[in-house]
Amino acid sequence: MTAKPDFEVSFAHDGPELSPRQMSARLAELTADGSTEADYYSNGGAVTALEQAMAELLGKERAVMFPTGTLANLLALRLLGGTAGGRIVVHRDSHLFNDSGDNLSQLGGFTMVPLNDAGVGYSAAAVRGEIARCANARVATKLAGIAIESPVRRHHGARFPPEELAKIVALAKGDGTPLFYDGARMMIEAAYIGREPAEIVAPYDLVYVSLYKYLGAPFGCVIAGDAEMLDDLYHDRRRFGGGLYQSWPAALLALDHLPGHLDRWRAAIERSEAVIDQLSADDRITVERIEDGTNIFLLGGPVADLDKGRLDAAADREGVKLPAPSNRKLAIKINETWTRWDADRLASTLIRILTD
Amino acid sequence: MTAKPDFEVSFAHDGPELSPRQMSARLAELTADGSTEADYYSNGGAVTALEQAMAELLGKERAVMFPTGTLANLLALRLLGGTAGGRIVVHRDSHLFNDSGDNLSQLGGFTMVPLNDAGVGYSAAAVRGEIARCANARVATKLAGIAIESPVRRHHGARFPPEELAKIVALAKGDGTPLFYDGARMMIEAAYIGREPAEIVAPYDLVYVSLYKYLGAPFGCVIAGDAEMLDDLYHDRRRFGGGLYQSWPAALLALDHLPGHLDRWRAAIERSEAVIDQLSADDRITVERIEDGTNIFLLGGPVADLDKGRLDAAADREGVKLPAPSNRKLAIKINETWTRWDADRLASTLIRILTD
Amino acid sequence: MTAKPDFEVSFAHDGPELSPRQMSARLAELTADGSTEADYYSNGGAVTALEQAMAELLGKERAVMFPTGTLANLLALRLLGGTAGGRIVVHRDSHLFNDSGDNLSQLGGFTMVPLNDAGVGYSAAAVRGEIARCANARVATKLAGIAIESPVRRHHGARFPPEELAKIVALAKGDGTPLFYDGARMMIEAAYIGREPAEIVAPYDLVYVSLYKYLGAPFGCVIAGDAEMLDDLYHDRRRFGGGLYQSWPAALLALDHLPGHLDRWRAAIERSEAVIDQLSADDRITVERIEDGTNIFLLGGPVADLDKGRLDAAADREGVKLPAPSNRKLAIKINETWTRWDADRLASTLIRILTD
Amino acid sequence: MTAKPDFEVSFAHDGPELSPRQMSARLAELTADGSTEADYYSNGGAVTALEQAMAELLGKERAVMFPTGTLANLLALRLLGGTAGGRIVVHRDSHLFNDSGDNLSQLGGFTMVPLNDAGVGYSAAAVRGEIARCANARVATKLAGIAIESPVRRHHGARFPPEELAKIVALAKGDGTPLFYDGARMMIEAAYIGREPAEIVAPYDLVYVSLYKYLGAPFGCVIAGDAEMLDDLYHDRRRFGGGLYQSWPAALLALDHLPGHLDRWRAAIERSEAVIDQLSADDRITVERIEDGTNIFLLGGPVADLDKGRLDAAADREGVKLPAPSNRKLAIKINETWTRWDADRLASTLIRILTD
Repeated sequence: MTAKPDFEVSFAHDGPELSPRQMSARLAELTADGSTEADYYSNGGAVTALEQAMAELLGKERAVMFPTGTLANLLALRLLGGTAGGRIVVHRDSHLFNDSGDNLSQLGGFTMVPLNDAGVGYSAAAVRGEIARCANARVATKLAGIAIESPVRRHHGARFPPEELAKIVALAKGDGTPLFYDGARMMIEAAYIGREPAEIVAPYDLVYVSLYKYLGAPFGCVIAGDAEMLDDLYHDRRRFGGGLYQSWPAALLALDHLPGHLDRWRAAIERSEAVIDQLSADDRITVERIEDGTNIFLLGGPVADLDKGRLDAAADREGVKLPAPSNRKLAIKINETWTRWDADRLASTLIRILTD
Repeated sequence: MTAKPDFEVSFAHDGPELSPRQMSARLAELTADGSTEADYYSNGGAVTALEQAMAELLGKERAVMFPTGTLANLLALRLLGGTAGGRIVVHRDSHLFNDSGDNLSQLGGFTMVPLNDAGVGYSAAAVRGEIARCANARVATKLAGIAIESPVRRHHGARFPPEELAKIVALAKGDGTPLFYDGARMMIEAAYIGREPAEIVAPYDLVYVSLYKYLGAPFGCVIAGDAEMLDDLYHDRRRFGGGLYQSWPAALLALDHLPGHLDRWRAAIERSEAVIDQLSADDRITVERIEDGTNIFLLGGPVADLDKGRLDAAADREGVKLPAPSNRKLAIKINETWTRWDADRLASTLIRILTD
Repeated sequence: MTAKPDFEVSFAHDGPELSPRQMSARLAELTADGSTEADYYSNGGAVTALEQAMAELLGKERAVMFPTGTLANLLALRLLGGTAGGRIVVHRDSHLFNDSGDNLSQLGGFTMVPLNDAGVGYSAAAVRGEIARCANARVATKLAGIAIESPVRRHHGARFPPEELAKIVALAKGDGTPLFYDGARMMIEAAYIGREPAEIVAPYDLVYVSLYKYLGAPFGCVIAGDAEMLDDLYHDRRRFGGGLYQSWPAALLALDHLPGHLDRWRAAIERSEAVIDQLSADDRITVERIEDGTNIFLLGGPVADLDKGRLDAAADREGVKLPAPSNRKLAIKINETWTRWDADRLASTLIRILTD
Repeated sequence: MTAKPDFEVSFAHDGPELSPRQMSARLAELTADGSTEADYYSNGGAVTALEQAMAELLGKERAVMFPTGTLANLLALRLLGGTAGGRIVVHRDSHLFNDSGDNLSQLGGFTMVPLNDAGVGYSAAAVRGEIARCANARVATKLAGIAIESPVRRHHGARFPPEELAKIVALAKGDGTPLFYDGARMMIEAAYIGREPAEIVAPYDLVYVSLYKYLGAPFGCVIAGDAEMLDDLYHDRRRFGGGLYQSWPAALLALDHLPGHLDRWRAAIERSEAVIDQLSADDRITVERIEDGTNIFLLGGPVADLDKGRLDAAADREGVKLPAPSNRKLAIKINETWTRWDADRLASTLIRILTD
C-alpha cells in the first residue's frame, strides 16, 4: 500500500494544514540542535517563548497558551465576568452560542443572550437594550461581558459590521462592561483590512487567537490581555483539564510560523484576486464574493453538484485539497498555500475540477 | 552557546522522558512514509489506532484518549456517578483529593469523602460506613463511586493494600457501586506484581492510564471501559475543552512505545535489584525500600543533603537525570532507561554522585 | 397611632391579598377545632391535603408544594430536562428569562433560548428552528424543554397565542420534547376562557400554579404532574433550601380558598365588564383593553398622571387599593374582591379617583 | 371525631412546638389591632422588625431572614468563601456534612473537608493540617471557610470542645480564614453556659440561628453579620428560591417569642436539674447525662424498650410529648414548656411513663 502524497495547495483550510509527515519533519529540524526546552505542564520552555511572541504581536502584556479555544473562551469569560454568573451578549450564529457545548452555562454559570439584529453582527442599540433588561430584572443581574466574533465562521468569514462594532466598543467602555474578542481567525482579518493585529485587538479586555487554524500548530491557542489577570490562569487551566504535560510541539511550530506570517497572507490575498478575476471570466463558473468577507468565496460550476467522491478524486489528481460541496457550491478558502502556485495554475486547476 | 546534551539514564522519572530532539526525531521516523493519518478534533487516524491498542491491552471494549488525566478522571466519574451529584470515596492522599483542583466538586458537583484508615489505602469497612452514612442522611444521597489509586504517587509508588482492595471490589459489586481506577501508573504495578494489565483493571467499570508517564507521549491518557458508556464521550470531551484539533503526535508516540513495554519494564526491574544490592553494600549510602512499593526507593548519602545545584552538576557530568533531594534523601525512580546501562555502571554512578 | 383599615376592594392585585389581621383571623377560625395537622418539613398534614386538592383540580396524579415559584420552576425543569444541561426555549419577556435570577443557568446548567417572534408568544416554526440548531451544533446538544407562560405578567396578562401554542404542543409531542407550563396565573385564564384547569394543563408534562397570587396563601405554589416524577422531589426541595419546617399555614389558607374559586372569578369578570362599560362611557376617562388579555385593563384620566401620593390618599379615602401609575395610566386588575361591591359603586369610585 | 388535645409539656423538642391551633390563635392576637405590616417578598414589615431584633440580640450589624437553614448556610458560606470554590472544614457529624443534601458541593462548588479528631469537635492542629494541604496542592486551592456547629444535634446537643474552639478561632483570625457558626441551637448553649448570645457569636464572621427550633416560628432562621456583606443578600435569596412572598407570620411569632426567652430557658434548666435528681434517685430508672452536654439526657427504664405505640398512648394520657425510643432509651429534651409544671409533676410523670 502506498500512502497518499501530501497536497500542495489547499482550497479548504484557513492555513497550511501540514500533514503528519510535514509537521514531524519540521519539528525535527527545529529541535535538531538540542536547544529546545520542554515545558512542564504547559509552563516554561517553548510555551513561554510562544506566549511572549504572541503577547508582543497582540500588543498585550501577557498571553497564555491553551489546548483548545473551547476551554480558552470559557476561562477568559470567567476572568472577565466572574464566577457568580451574569449575562454574556453573543451573536446568535457565533461559535460561543453554537459550537461550545454550552459550556458557558454548564461550567461557567453564565446566561448567553443571543442577538442578531445587525446581520453578521448585532447593534449597539440591542446591547443597550440588554443592559436595560438587566436593570429591570427582579433579581439583580449584570451584563458580565460582550463577546465579539470576527471573522464569523458560520457566515463564510464575514466581518462583524465595523460601524456597529465601534459603537459597541464605546458603549462598553462607558459602562465598564468587559469586552471579549473571539479572534480565532483575527490574523485573516488583519491581512484583509490591512491593520496591525495589535490595533485590531486593542479595544478588548481579553482576546483569543488560534494557533492551529493558520499558524501551523497541531492544536492550541492563546488568550492575551493584562498580566495581572492572566499570570495565575494556569491554575484554572489545570483544574479544568487543560494543563497538558508538554505542549512544546504545538508552541514550537506556531513560533516557527509567526515570522512573515502576515506578509504571506497578503501575498496570498493578492494572488487570489487574480484567480477570482480569471474564474469570473469563465462562463461555466459562478463566483460569489461574501459581503464584508475575508478569505472565502463561493464557487459553482457543472461539477459542483456532483458527489463528493468525484470531486475528491479530481483534487487528488491535481494535488490540492477541496472543501466538501454544500448547496451545490464550494466555499473556497484562500490561505498561504496559494503562494506555492501562480494565479494561472490556481485558476486553471479550479476550472478543470469544476468543469471536466 | 551549546545546548545541554540529553541524559542517558533517568533516576527521576517513571518513563523515558524524551527530550524535544529525541521525540521529534522519532516522530519524523514514524511519519516518514506518509501513511500516518491525522485525527480530526481527536477522533480518527492515529488516535483511533492508539485507542484500539489500549483497549486491547486493558481488556476493555473501548478506550478514549484525553489530553490530561485531570479531565479524564472528572469525565469518567461523571459517566459513572451521573450529573446529579453524589459522594465519591477517595483516599486522603490521592491525586483526586489533592491535585485536581477539586474539579470533582467545582465542575462535577460531587462530594469527595476522603478516607485513610488502611495506610496507603482505606478499608472496606470504612466504605461500608460511608454507605451507611448516605442511608442515614436527611436528604437522599448516594455513593456515586469508589475511586482507587494504585500505585500512589504521594506514597512513593506504594500499592493500595491488595487485601482491602479485594474486599472493596466485592462490596462494590454486591452493592452496584461504580468502581473507578486511577491507574495513572498501572503498568508499573503490572510489571512489579507480574500480572497482565487486563487482569488488574478487570474489576473496574472505568480505568484511566497515562500515556506520558512511561509511554513516551508528550501528554495524554486514555479512559477505558464499556463501549456503550464511552462511544459518545468525545462530545463532553469537547464541551469541557479537551477536544484538541490534532492529538496524533501524542497518540503515535504512545502507540510506538507499547510493543515490548512490559518486557522492558521487567528487564529494568531485574537490573534495579542488582543495583540496589550494590548500593546497600556500600556503608556510606543508605537505601530504603518502600513497603508494598513499586519503582521507587530512597537513597541517602553524604552529598544528598547538599544543595540541588551540586547534585545537578554531578548529574550533568554523569549523563543522568536526578530527582530533587527531599528530607536529605533522593527518591530514585526505576524506569526503562535503566536498561541502557549495566548494573555496575548504574550503581557506581549513583555512589559517585552521592559520595564525591 | 391608629392602624390603617384594611381595603375592601383591590384594583392592584390578582387575588384577595389578605391583610395580616384578615389572614390570621381566618387561620384562627380554620384551626379552632384542633383538627389541623402540621406538616413535618413540608410533608404530611395540611400540606398533603392541599397537594391532593391541587392534583385533583389540575387532573394530574401528584402535586408538590413549594415555597416559591422561583424554586419550583427550576426543579421542575431539572426533572424534565435532566441535570446534564440542555436548552430551554423561553419567551424573551417571560418570568423565567427576566425574573428568576438566571437560576436555570446558574443552578440548573441550562441554556435559555429566548424567542419572541409571535408577540406575547413565539411560533412553532421558531421552536423547530432551535431543534435544528441543536442538531447542527458541534457538540451534541438537546432541546431539554419548552416553557410556556400564560397569561404573561410582563404583557398585562395577555395570553400566549392559542394557535401557535397548539402547534408547539403538537411539535413537542411528536418530538418527545418536555413541555413545561409556567401557569402562575392559570386560574385567571381558566376563568376568562371558560375552560377547566385540568383541560388547560393537560398537554404539559409539569405545571406550576401559584398559591399566593389569588388563592389566599401568604406564599407558595405547587408543581403538578406524574407521581413517578414527583414522589421523591421533596429531597431536592430540601437540598435546594425549600424544605420549610412547617408550611401548613399557607397550605391551609389555599385549601380554604379553593372551593368556589372559579365561580367567584367568573362573577368578578361579569361585574367587571359592566364596570368597564360605565368607565368607557365617561369622556374624561380612557379605557384600553389588552389584546388576548385577561384580568387587566389600562385606565387613564385627569388624575392618573399625578403623583402616586395623591392617588394613594384617594384610595385610602375610598377603601380601595390602587396600582402605581405607569406611563400616566393605571393597570387596573380585576379579582374576586370586586364581587364585594356592585358595578355602580366600583365604576363611580374609579371615576371619582381619576377625575376629582 | 374529636381532635387530640394539644400537649402541655414536651420532652421531645427544643422549643414550645405550638400546635396549629395555638400558633394561629397567637397570630390572631398579635395582628388584631391592624398594625402589623406585611413584608413584600420577605423584605420590609414584620420581617425587617425581626431582623433588627435578631441583629441586636446577636450584636451584629445586620440580620437577614431565610425560610430554611439549608439555604441560609449555603448562601452564608458563599458570602464568606466566594463563588469560585474552595475548601470548607466541617465536622464529620455536622449538619452540613450529613443533612444538607451536599448542597455546598452541588450548588456552591465547595469541597467539604470532614474532620473529627477531637470528639464532638475537631482540633486546631487538624485545621492547620488542612491549610498545609491546600498550600501543597498542585492546583491553587484555598481554605475558604471553617464551619463550627455547637451544640451538635448528632451528638445529643453536646458542645464543640471550648478549648479547641478557642484555638481554632485564634488560628482563623491569624490567617484571615472566614469563620462560620452553625448556631441553629445557639440560644440553648447561651442559656446553659450563662453567656450572652452576642458574646458567643462574636468571633464568627457570619452566624446562623434558627427561628423555629425554640422561638415559636413555623419555619425560618436568620444569618447575621456585617451589613456590607448582607445588605444585598436578598437578591441571591430570591435567585435560590428563598424569597417567599410573605414571611411575616414566621417573623411575627419569633419576634413575639424573643422577650424573656433566655430567662425562660434558665428557669427550665433549673427545674430540669431538680427533675433529673428525682429521676436519678429512682432505682428502676437510668439517667445518662451527656458530656459537655446541654438540654438532652438519656432516660432508660422498664418500659423504654417497648414499642412506640405504648409510649405514645401513655404520653397522650399524661398530656405530654415523648421522643421516639432509640436503643431502648429516650433522649429527653429540656425546653421552656417544662416551666408549665413543677419539678415533682415532671419527674413523677416521666417515672410513671417509664415504669407502669
